[in-house]
Amino acid sequence: MAERPRRKQLADQVAEELQERVLKGEWKPGEKLPTEFDLIEDLNVGRGTVREAVKILVTRNVLEIRRGNGTYVVENPGQVEDPFGFAFYGDKWKLAEDLCEVRLLLEPDIAALAAARATREEVDYILTCCEAVEQAIHSGQSHSAADMEFHGAIAAASHNHVMASMAPVIQKSVSAFIEVTNSSLTEMTIQTHRQVADAIARHDAEAAGAAMREHLVNNRDHIVTVSRGASFV
Amino acid sequence: MAERPRRKQLADQVAEELQERVLKGEWKPGEKLPTEFDLIEDLNVGRGTVREAVKILVTRNVLEIRRGNGTYVVENPGQVEDPFGFAFYGDKWKLAEDLCEVRLLLEPDIAALAAARATREEVDYILTCCEAVEQAIHSGQSHSAADMEFHGAIAAASHNHVMASMAPVIQKSVSAFIEVTNSSLTEMTIQTHRQVADAIARHDAEAAGAAMREHLVNNRDHIVTVSRGASFV
Repeated sequence: MAERPRRKQLADQVAEELQERVLKGEWKPGEKLPTEFDLIEDLNVGRGTVREAVKILVTRNVLEIRRGNGTYVVENPGQVEDPFGFAFYGDKWKLAEDLCEVRLLLEPDIAALAAARATREEVDYILTCCEAVEQAIHSGQSHSAADMEFHGAIAAASHNHVMASMAPVIQKSVSAFIEVTNSSLTEMTIQTHRQVADAIARHDAEAAGAAMREHLVNNRDHIVTVSRGASFV
Repeated sequence: MAERPRRKQLADQVAEELQERVLKGEWKPGEKLPTEFDLIEDLNVGRGTVREAVKILVTRNVLEIRRGNGTYVVENPGQVEDPFGFAFYGDKWKLAEDLCEVRLLLEPDIAALAAARATREEVDYILTCCEAVEQAIHSGQSHSAADMEFHGAIAAASHNHVMASMAPVIQKSVSAFIEVTNSSLTEMTIQTHRQVADAIARHDAEAAGAAMREHLVNNRDHIVTVSRGASFV
């Protein structure tokens, strides 16, 4: 037991060293790390230390272990599921309102930027996502995942990395509050999504921003209506 | 060694259980947890498992260990230093430009909301922060920390939790690119900060937004100028 603190410290140091190599681009996102055996040789530490260091970087979302395959750098190193700790907020409906407010500030501008900057491939993908949402709704299935993909594709087409990282965090948090089976809401979603997608396709920034604003105002009003009558668990 | 995987799993379960209690508000932000001895009794697991579970939640920024004092829930559970993994971005100047763009979308609106919603105490604190920045500049010291506090105080006065969580992450990331010793920039900072603070104090949302926009445009132009001649390490 006397050895444990020292090994913990060593594992932290090795984790820093490995992270440094990812930061420097020595190992790129999606790339496979050398074998455990090679890392032990290279870093001149024991197997337990290497394993603990890898575990630390898994917790930090830098590395991932694929069973029977090896250790890889994740696609978006350092990004975490709930980076702002929204899960820890006490008042869930206040959180929902705050999220709607932030979306209304950000996403119309993101849609406008996407209209200005989207490549032809990006436009095609946004239109494909738009159709996927419609199909999910018409088949009576949840369209949450398709909806996230649609908004994420627009954020990516803004060509702003920060926006493309931030927007999904907000979108995902809001989606917990949207009752996707509400039929008047889904009708509106189909219509405003289509307006947003078409405006981006013809590179009309004003129209894309305006349509996105309308879409989000509808969503917000739905959440506010539900929050009046419901208790959130 | 055969016992290790099982203990790891158990520690993960105990970590989930402890986190659940924080989520439910049983232990609030800033509050002290029961002693290790009491947790062992309560959870019916060994000391090693409790310690490992606590360590997991320290890594997740839910708990912190204060030496010789005990284990506490952190003030902002679940929030991490660099939640979007900006440190891992390859092109630092492109990142700087993206950050400036996002700030320009968000912060004028945040300033306008603060002007509409700030309490008297919040206005006083914003004015105090404004003076602290001026004093730091006049004494020839770095005003980075004071600047962060000023912008953070405005985000808090927006009364939007999401905004107050997100804005500092952006601000902190941008600050790495601002050369604080540039004298024309510090002159401008003093002037536009003062305009923002005064507009918030008289609850003039339009003026607060406009002054913040001017401030951030100046910052952006400075960063773009520097990026043309410099290489970022």
